[in-house]
Amino acid sequence: MAEMDSTPSSSTVSRTVLLVLRVLTFVFLLISLIIIAVNKGTEDTTVGPLQIKFNDIHAYRYMLSTIVIGFVYNLLQMALSIFTVVSGNRVLSGDVGYLFDFFGDKIISYFLISGSAAGFGVSYDVQSFLKSQELPFNSFFGKAYASASLLLIGFLFTAIASVFTSFTLPKRA
Amino acid sequence: MAEMDSTPSSSTVSRTVLLVLRVLTFVFLLISLIIIAVNKGTEDTTVGPLQIKFNDIHAYRYMLSTIVIGFVYNLLQMALSIFTVVSGNRVLSGDVGYLFDFFGDKIISYFLISGSAAGFGVSYDVQSFLKSQELPFNSFFGKAYASASLLLIGFLFTAIASVFTSFTLPKRA
Repeated sequence: MAEMDSTPSSSTVSRTVLLVLRVLTFVFLLISLIIIAVNKGTEDTTVGPLQIKFNDIHAYRYMLSTIVIGFVYNLLQMALSIFTVVSGNRVLSGDVGYLFDFFGDKIISYFLISGSAAGFGVSYDVQSFLKSQELPFNSFFGKAYASASLLLIGFLFTAIASVFTSFTLPKRA
Repeated sequence: MAEMDSTPSSSTVSRTVLLVLRVLTFVFLLISLIIIAVNKGTEDTTVGPLQIKFNDIHAYRYMLSTIVIGFVYNLLQMALSIFTVVSGNRVLSGDVGYLFDFFGDKIISYFLISGSAAGFGVSYDVQSFLKSQELPFNSFFGKAYASASLLLIGFLFTAIASVFTSFTLPKRA
Protein backbone atom coordinates (compact mmCIF):
# COMPACT_ATOMS: atom_id res chain seq x y z
CA MET A 1 0.00 0.00 0.00
CA ALA A 2 1.44 3.34 -1.03
CA GLU A 3 1.61 6.28 1.34
CA MET A 4 -1.60 8.29 1.37
CA ASP A 5 -0.54 11.55 2.98
CA SER A 6 0.97 13.30 -0.03
CA THR A 7 -1.05 16.26 -1.30
CA PRO A 8 -2.19 15.02 -4.76
CA SER A 9 -3.43 11.62 -3.55
CA SER A 10 -5.33 13.09 -0.58
CA SER A 11 -6.97 15.55 -3.01
CA THR A 12 -7.90 12.63 -5.31
CA VAL A 13 -9.41 10.69 -2.39
CA SER A 14 -11.42 13.75 -1.41
CA ARG A 15 -12.68 14.25 -4.98
CA THR A 16 -13.61 10.57 -5.28
CA VAL A 17 -15.55 10.69 -1.99
CA LEU A 18 -17.34 13.84 -3.23
CA LEU A 19 -18.26 12.16 -6.52
CA VAL A 20 -19.62 9.09 -4.70
CA LEU A 21 -21.69 11.34 -2.39
CA ARG A 22 -23.10 13.17 -5.42
CA VAL A 23 -23.97 9.98 -7.28
CA LEU A 24 -25.74 8.71 -4.12
CA THR A 25 -27.64 12.02 -3.71
CA PHE A 26 -28.61 11.86 -7.40
CA VAL A 27 -29.99 8.31 -7.09
CA PHE A 28 -31.99 9.06 -3.92
CA LEU A 29 -33.40 12.29 -5.39
CA LEU A 30 -34.38 10.48 -8.60
CA ILE A 31 -36.37 7.81 -6.70
CA SER A 32 -37.87 10.50 -4.42
CA LEU A 33 -38.90 12.51 -7.50
CA ILE A 34 -40.58 9.55 -9.20
CA ILE A 35 -42.48 8.54 -6.05
CA ILE A 36 -43.89 12.02 -5.36
CA ALA A 37 -44.61 12.93 -9.00
CA VAL A 38 -46.77 9.86 -9.71
CA ASN A 39 -48.39 9.87 -6.26
CA LYS A 40 -52.20 9.63 -6.38
CA GLY A 41 -54.76 8.39 -3.89
CA THR A 42 -58.44 7.48 -4.10
CA GLU A 43 -61.02 7.03 -1.35
CA ASP A 44 -64.62 5.90 -1.87
CA THR A 45 -67.18 8.31 -0.45
CA THR A 46 -70.96 8.36 -0.45
CA VAL A 47 -70.86 10.70 -3.46
CA GLY A 48 -68.42 8.56 -5.45
CA PRO A 49 -64.63 8.12 -5.44
CA LEU A 50 -62.55 11.12 -4.32
CA GLN A 51 -59.06 11.50 -5.76
CA ILE A 52 -56.05 13.33 -4.32
CA LYS A 53 -52.85 14.14 -6.25
CA PHE A 54 -49.52 15.48 -5.03
CA ASN A 55 -50.19 18.91 -6.53
CA ASP A 56 -53.35 19.32 -4.45
CA ILE A 57 -51.02 19.92 -1.49
CA HIS A 58 -48.86 23.01 -1.89
CA ALA A 59 -46.08 21.76 0.39
CA TYR A 60 -45.61 18.73 -1.93
CA ARG A 61 -45.22 21.11 -4.88
CA TYR A 62 -42.48 22.93 -2.98
CA MET A 63 -40.91 19.57 -2.09
CA LEU A 64 -40.91 18.58 -5.78
CA SER A 65 -39.26 21.92 -6.69
CA THR A 66 -36.44 21.37 -4.20
CA ILE A 67 -35.89 17.82 -5.50
CA VAL A 68 -35.63 19.15 -9.08
CA ILE A 69 -33.18 21.90 -7.98
CA GLY A 70 -31.00 19.33 -6.16
CA PHE A 71 -31.25 16.92 -9.10
CA VAL A 72 -30.08 19.52 -11.66
CA TYR A 73 -27.24 20.66 -9.38
CA ASN A 74 -25.95 17.11 -8.87
CA LEU A 75 -26.25 16.38 -12.60
CA LEU A 76 -24.12 19.48 -13.30
CA GLN A 77 -21.55 18.49 -10.64
CA MET A 78 -21.29 14.94 -12.03
CA ALA A 79 -20.90 16.29 -15.59
CA LEU A 80 -18.08 18.58 -14.39
CA SER A 81 -16.39 15.64 -12.62
CA ILE A 82 -16.58 13.43 -15.72
CA PHE A 83 -15.23 16.26 -17.87
CA THR A 84 -12.37 16.70 -15.38
CA VAL A 85 -11.47 12.98 -15.53
CA VAL A 86 -11.70 12.85 -19.34
CA SER A 87 -9.87 16.10 -20.12
CA GLY A 88 -7.50 16.12 -17.14
CA ASN A 89 -8.39 19.76 -16.42
CA ARG A 90 -10.92 21.15 -13.96
CA VAL A 91 -13.49 23.28 -15.78
CA LEU A 92 -13.71 25.67 -12.83
CA SER A 93 -10.13 25.93 -11.67
CA GLY A 94 -8.65 27.53 -8.57
CA ASP A 95 -10.73 29.62 -6.17
CA VAL A 96 -13.75 29.82 -8.49
CA GLY A 97 -14.07 26.02 -8.43
CA TYR A 98 -13.73 25.82 -4.65
CA LEU A 99 -16.25 28.61 -4.08
CA PHE A 100 -18.72 27.05 -6.55
CA ASP A 101 -18.50 23.71 -4.71
CA PHE A 102 -18.71 25.37 -1.28
CA PHE A 103 -21.70 27.65 -1.93
CA GLY A 104 -23.36 25.09 -4.22
CA ASP A 105 -23.31 22.29 -1.63
CA LYS A 106 -24.29 24.69 1.15
CA ILE A 107 -27.27 26.30 -0.61
CA ILE A 108 -28.52 23.06 -2.20
CA SER A 109 -28.36 21.22 1.14
CA TYR A 110 -30.54 24.00 2.68
CA PHE A 111 -33.04 23.59 -0.17
CA LEU A 112 -33.16 19.80 0.27
CA ILE A 113 -33.74 19.87 4.05
CA SER A 114 -36.41 22.58 3.65
CA GLY A 115 -38.26 20.48 1.05
CA SER A 116 -38.08 17.38 3.22
CA ALA A 117 -39.21 19.28 6.34
CA ALA A 118 -42.14 20.87 4.48
CA GLY A 119 -43.16 17.42 3.22
CA PHE A 120 -42.96 15.77 6.64
CA GLY A 121 -44.56 18.79 8.33
CA VAL A 122 -47.62 18.88 6.11
CA SER A 123 -48.18 15.12 5.89
CA TYR A 124 -48.94 14.35 9.52
CA ASP A 125 -51.32 17.25 10.17
CA VAL A 126 -53.18 17.17 6.83
CA GLN A 127 -53.69 13.42 7.17
CA SER A 128 -55.03 13.95 10.72
CA PHE A 129 -57.62 16.41 9.39
CA LEU A 130 -58.60 14.09 6.52
CA LYS A 131 -58.80 11.11 8.88
CA SER A 132 -61.30 13.01 11.03
CA GLN A 133 -63.52 13.02 7.92
CA GLU A 134 -63.05 9.31 7.19
CA LEU A 135 -60.63 10.02 4.34
CA PRO A 136 -57.34 8.56 5.56
CA PHE A 137 -55.64 8.21 2.10
CA ASN A 138 -53.14 5.87 3.79
CA SER A 139 -51.36 4.76 0.61
CA PHE A 140 -51.07 8.35 -0.68
CA PHE A 141 -49.53 9.69 2.54
CA GLY A 142 -47.37 6.58 2.92
CA LYS A 143 -45.77 7.32 -0.44
CA ALA A 144 -45.38 11.00 0.48
CA TYR A 145 -43.53 9.97 3.66
CA ALA A 146 -41.33 7.61 1.59
CA SER A 147 -40.47 10.44 -0.81
CA ALA A 148 -39.71 12.89 2.02
CA SER A 149 -37.51 10.22 3.69
CA LEU A 150 -35.50 9.61 0.51
CA LEU A 151 -35.13 13.38 0.12
CA LEU A 152 -33.86 13.54 3.72
CA ILE A 153 -31.24 10.86 2.93
CA GLY A 154 -30.27 12.84 -0.21
CA PHE A 155 -29.90 15.90 2.04
CA LEU A 156 -27.62 13.98 4.43
CA PHE A 157 -25.27 13.00 1.57
CA THR A 158 -25.18 16.63 0.36
CA ALA A 159 -24.57 17.88 3.92
CA ILE A 160 -21.58 15.50 4.21
CA ALA A 161 -20.32 16.74 0.81
CA SER A 162 -20.71 20.29 2.17
CA VAL A 163 -18.46 19.44 5.15
CA PHE A 164 -15.82 18.12 2.71
CA THR A 165 -15.98 21.20 0.48
CA SER A 166 -15.74 23.49 3.55
CA PHE A 167 -12.48 21.85 4.59
CA THR A 168 -10.99 22.19 1.09
CA LEU A 169 -11.72 25.94 0.99
CA PRO A 170 -8.72 28.19 0.60
CA LYS A 171 -8.26 29.75 4.04
CA ARG A 172 -9.69 33.25 4.38
CA ALA A 173 -10.53 33.67 0.69
CA MET B 1 -1.51 27.50 18.37
CA ALA B 2 -4.31 29.83 19.42
CA GLU B 3 -4.66 32.29 16.55
CA MET B 4 -2.71 30.71 13.65
CA ASP B 5 -0.71 33.29 11.70
CA SER B 6 -3.50 35.62 10.60
CA THR B 7 -3.52 39.34 11.26
CA PRO B 8 -5.14 40.04 14.65
CA SER B 9 -7.35 42.83 13.31
CA SER B 10 -9.04 40.65 10.65
CA SER B 11 -9.66 37.97 13.30
CA THR B 12 -11.19 40.56 15.66
CA VAL B 13 -13.45 41.92 12.90
CA SER B 14 -14.55 38.39 12.06
CA ARG B 15 -15.34 37.59 15.73
CA THR B 16 -17.26 40.86 16.11
CA VAL B 17 -19.33 40.14 12.98
CA LEU B 18 -20.04 36.64 14.31
CA LEU B 19 -21.15 38.01 17.69
CA VAL B 20 -23.47 40.54 16.00
CA LEU B 21 -24.97 37.76 13.83
CA ARG B 22 -25.56 35.63 16.94
CA VAL B 23 -27.19 38.45 18.89
CA LEU B 24 -29.48 39.13 15.88
CA THR B 25 -30.36 35.41 15.59
CA PHE B 26 -31.05 35.31 19.33
CA VAL B 27 -33.43 38.31 19.16
CA PHE B 28 -35.35 36.99 16.15
CA LEU B 29 -35.66 33.51 17.68
CA LEU B 30 -36.88 34.99 20.97
CA ILE B 31 -39.69 36.95 19.25
CA SER B 32 -40.51 33.93 17.06
CA LEU B 33 -40.68 31.73 20.18
CA ILE B 34 -43.02 34.10 22.03
CA ILE B 35 -45.37 34.49 19.04
CA ILE B 36 -45.74 30.74 18.42
CA ALA B 37 -45.90 29.71 22.10
CA VAL B 38 -48.80 32.03 22.99
CA ASN B 39 -50.61 31.52 19.67
CA LYS B 40 -54.30 30.65 20.07
CA GLY B 41 -57.28 31.10 17.78
CA THR B 42 -61.04 30.89 18.26
CA GLU B 43 -63.85 30.55 15.71
CA ASP B 44 -67.56 30.60 16.50
CA THR B 45 -69.42 27.54 15.24
CA THR B 46 -73.01 26.38 15.51
CA VAL B 47 -72.02 24.19 18.48
CA GLY B 48 -70.18 26.99 20.29
CA PRO B 49 -66.69 28.52 20.04
CA LEU B 50 -63.92 26.24 18.74
CA GLN B 51 -60.37 26.88 19.92
CA ILE B 52 -57.07 25.97 18.25
CA LYS B 53 -53.65 26.15 19.94
CA PHE B 54 -50.17 25.82 18.48
CA ASN B 55 -49.70 22.35 19.97
CA ASP B 56 -52.75 21.02 18.12
CA ILE B 57 -50.58 21.07 15.00
CA HIS B 58 -47.59 18.74 15.19
CA ALA B 59 -45.47 20.73 12.74
CA TYR B 60 -45.70 23.77 15.05
CA ARG B 61 -44.45 21.65 17.95
CA TYR B 62 -41.44 20.67 15.82
CA MET B 63 -40.97 24.34 14.87
CA LEU B 64 -40.98 25.32 18.54
CA SER B 65 -38.38 22.62 19.29
CA THR B 66 -36.02 23.92 16.60
CA ILE B 67 -36.44 27.49 17.91
CA VAL B 68 -35.53 26.32 21.44
CA ILE B 69 -32.49 24.40 20.14
CA GLY B 70 -31.28 27.46 18.19
CA PHE B 71 -32.00 29.72 21.16
CA VAL B 72 -29.93 27.60 23.59
CA TYR B 73 -27.05 27.30 21.10
CA ASN B 74 -26.90 31.08 20.54
CA LEU B 75 -27.11 31.72 24.28
CA LEU B 76 -24.14 29.39 24.79
CA GLN B 77 -22.15 31.04 21.97
CA MET B 78 -22.85 34.53 23.37
CA ALA B 79 -21.81 33.40 26.86
CA LEU B 80 -18.55 32.01 25.43
CA SER B 81 -17.93 35.29 23.57
CA ILE B 82 -18.53 37.39 26.70
CA PHE B 83 -16.24 35.11 28.72
CA THR B 84 -13.57 35.50 26.00
CA VAL B 85 -13.80 39.30 26.14
CA VAL B 86 -13.76 39.41 29.95
CA SER B 87 -11.00 36.86 30.57
CA GLY B 88 -8.99 37.47 27.37
CA ASN B 89 -8.82 33.73 26.72
CA ARG B 90 -11.03 31.63 24.45
CA VAL B 91 -12.71 28.85 26.44
CA LEU B 92 -12.46 26.49 23.49
CA SER B 93 -9.05 27.27 22.05
CA GLY B 94 -7.40 26.13 18.84
CA ASP B 95 -8.93 23.49 16.59
CA VAL B 96 -11.61 22.44 19.13
CA GLY B 97 -13.00 25.99 19.12
CA TYR B 98 -13.01 26.23 15.33
CA LEU B 99 -14.66 22.82 14.92
CA PHE B 100 -17.29 23.62 17.58
CA ASP B 101 -18.19 26.87 15.75
CA PHE B 102 -18.15 25.19 12.33
CA PHE B 103 -20.30 22.15 13.17
CA GLY B 104 -22.46 24.13 15.61
CA ASP B 105 -23.42 26.80 13.07
CA LYS B 106 -23.87 24.19 10.33
CA ILE B 107 -26.11 21.81 12.29
CA ILE B 108 -28.13 24.57 14.02
CA SER B 109 -28.75 26.32 10.69
CA TYR B 110 -30.14 23.03 9.29
CA PHE B 111 -32.45 22.73 12.33
CA LEU B 112 -33.68 26.32 11.93
CA ILE B 113 -34.48 26.04 8.21
CA SER B 114 -36.22 22.70 8.76
CA GLY B 115 -38.40 24.19 11.52
CA SER B 116 -39.30 27.19 9.39
CA ALA B 117 -40.05 25.01 6.33
CA ALA B 118 -42.25 22.66 8.38
CA GLY B 119 -44.13 25.68 9.76
CA PHE B 120 -44.67 27.29 6.35
CA GLY B 121 -45.45 23.92 4.74
CA VAL B 122 -48.17 22.98 7.19
CA SER B 123 -49.79 26.42 7.49
CA TYR B 124 -51.00 26.90 3.93
CA ASP B 125 -52.48 23.44 3.42
CA VAL B 126 -54.04 23.01 6.88
CA GLN B 127 -55.62 26.46 6.63
CA SER B 128 -57.01 25.53 3.18
CA PHE B 129 -58.68 22.45 4.66
CA LEU B 130 -60.07 24.41 7.61
CA LYS B 131 -61.30 27.20 5.30
CA SER B 132 -63.29 24.64 3.33
CA GLN B 133 -65.16 24.01 6.59
CA GLU B 134 -65.74 27.70 7.33
CA LEU B 135 -63.04 27.74 10.00
CA PRO B 136 -60.39 30.09 8.56
CA PHE B 137 -58.62 30.94 11.87
CA ASN B 138 -57.01 33.88 10.04
CA SER B 139 -55.41 35.48 13.09
CA PHE B 140 -54.01 32.14 14.32
CA PHE B 141 -52.38 31.27 10.98
CA GLY B 142 -51.25 34.87 10.48
CA LYS B 143 -49.27 34.65 13.71
CA ALA B 144 -47.90 31.23 12.72
CA TYR B 145 -46.65 32.72 9.43
CA ALA B 146 -45.10 35.62 11.36
CA SER B 147 -43.29 33.18 13.67
CA ALA B 148 -42.06 31.03 10.75
CA SER B 149 -40.85 34.19 8.95
CA LEU B 150 -38.87 35.40 11.98
CA LEU B 151 -37.41 31.89 12.30
CA LEU B 152 -36.40 32.07 8.62
CA ILE B 153 -34.63 35.40 9.25
CA GLY B 154 -32.89 33.83 12.27
CA PHE B 155 -31.82 30.97 9.98
CA LEU B 156 -30.38 33.45 7.44
CA PHE B 157 -28.20 35.08 10.13
CA THR B 158 -26.98 31.67 11.30
CA ALA B 159 -26.31 30.60 7.68
CA ILE B 160 -24.17 33.75 7.18
CA ALA B 161 -22.36 32.95 10.47
CA SER B 162 -21.80 29.44 9.11
CA VAL B 163 -20.12 30.85 5.98
CA PHE B 164 -17.81 32.91 8.23
CA THR B 165 -16.89 29.94 10.44
CA SER B 166 -16.24 27.80 7.33
CA PHE B 167 -13.66 30.30 6.06
CA THR B 168 -11.90 30.45 9.43
CA LEU B 169 -11.51 26.65 9.54
CA PRO B 170 -7.94 25.39 9.69
CA LYS B 171 -7.34 23.99 6.21
CA ARG B 172 -7.66 20.19 6.03
CA ALA B 173 -8.07 19.67 9.77
